[in-house]
Amino acid sequence: MILTFVGTAGSGKTALTYSFGKYLEESYSVAYVNLDTGAKKLPYRPDVDVRETVTVEELMAEGYGPNGAIVESYDRLMAKFDEYLGAILELEGEHDYVLIDTPGQMEAFLFHEFGVRLMENLPSPLTVYLSDPEILRRPHDYCFVRFFALLLDLRLGTTTVPALNKVDLLDEEELEMHKRYFDDMEYLKTRLRLDTSMQGLLAFRLCSFLSEVSPPVRFIYLSAKTGEGFEDLNTLAYEHYCTCGDLT
Amino acid sequence: MILTFVGTAGSGKTALTYSFGKYLEESYSVAYVNLDTGAKKLPYRPDVDVRETVTVEELMAEGYGPNGAIVESYDRLMAKFDEYLGAILELEGEHDYVLIDTPGQMEAFLFHEFGVRLMENLPSPLTVYLSDPEILRRPHDYCFVRFFALLLDLRLGTTTVPALNKVDLLDEEELEMHKRYFDDMEYLKTRLRLDTSMQGLLAFRLCSFLSEVSPPVRFIYLSAKTGEGFEDLNTLAYEHYCTCGDLT
Repeated sequence: MILTFVGTAGSGKTALTYSFGKYLEESYSVAYVNLDTGAKKLPYRPDVDVRETVTVEELMAEGYGPNGAIVESYDRLMAKFDEYLGAILELEGEHDYVLIDTPGQMEAFLFHEFGVRLMENLPSPLTVYLSDPEILRRPHDYCFVRFFALLLDLRLGTTTVPALNKVDLLDEEELEMHKRYFDDMEYLKTRLRLDTSMQGLLAFRLCSFLSEVSPPVRFIYLSAKTGEGFEDLNTLAYEHYCTCGDLT
Repeated sequence: MILTFVGTAGSGKTALTYSFGKYLEESYSVAYVNLDTGAKKLPYRPDVDVRETVTVEELMAEGYGPNGAIVESYDRLMAKFDEYLGAILELEGEHDYVLIDTPGQMEAFLFHEFGVRLMENLPSPLTVYLSDPEILRRPHDYCFVRFFALLLDLRLGTTTVPALNKVDLLDEEELEMHKRYFDDMEYLKTRLRLDTSMQGLLAFRLCSFLSEVSPPVRFIYLSAKTGEGFEDLNTLAYEHYCTCGDLT
């Protein structure tokens, strides 16, 4: 089973990869893959690590600016694409779980051939899309997150589990509020209807069509700190692989 | 009139800001805003430049990794949000056009309060979303681009003009092919129908209801090198402002 953690820099991919990995290790054999050329320090020990080929920092030492270095690092990784794909497939054969920690900057994964082709060539990976609660300020933000998860399905060709991360930073009331918006589409639409701006109108339309475009997707609530949601994620991963027939 | 160039690192935002700016300067007064804390060298002279407050490189010298430095730079800019907003509004009052070059890494703009709040507080900015032709490999990629532009409308609360950039790198046949996919929705849907994978199916459904969710959006084809599409962009900007009533 391959789980790929996707999200913006700071959304907690690396901490979750480590923490969820530790949780899984109690019952399964787990392998770790780091795809972030910009990672400075990793809490887990990667079995496959793109930094062995190239790092953002060494490219900056060559004279690239930070943005150029990030793009160039994945350009250079393309030369070793088959090697990395092969190594990950090997891990998948030898372990129950392979956890993939993706580039810090999400676009380096979503908009670069390296990440997209990798996902297309892996056997039914499950994408876990992490959102930081900080971006949820108004009703249309919940709609944005749901649609972004759908775009990940489209872009990566995978099943995407949308997740709210770092829930340990929220008090009970805040978490309940987020859950209401994510788990109750009718409630979200009611709140969107109150926003007569262009954003509110667009969000209402988008969310109304969401159910017609894709089956209802369950949101999960995670914390790398407390382990909240780990059981749910494990269950979802298992269900995903049973559906795909990839029972290990 | 405020034009904001959004796109992934390497999509050509900076080169276009400079080149389109030079084109406009023949008839209008133009101001330039750089929002990229990771920019190494700029071809235009910015009237407002966030690097005066903080740069990614200086944060890396403090010990941050590249990803952490990018996030931290925008966190630090929040302390001067009102200053920057005020400066940009002042430019808007004094010039016909304000061209805004956004962070190299798109998520630093789309998923950070600094970028989102800025756009929400500017008077009817027009977002130009640049795509690199390299990401268009299969029919569903065209659908992804169209939907991403829609998500920008939702996220930033602006009108987004989707644009294919660097068209000078394409031969006539390739450009015609891209135009057909972007300008003829029925053709795109026909091609999507041939793809029976999950991605193809999802793309077909998403593109089918695109027209129900938003009015047809015109795609433009740009080149910073040759100036292709500049007249179209200028016309679109003018139409946008006439609609909003913000005639300068």
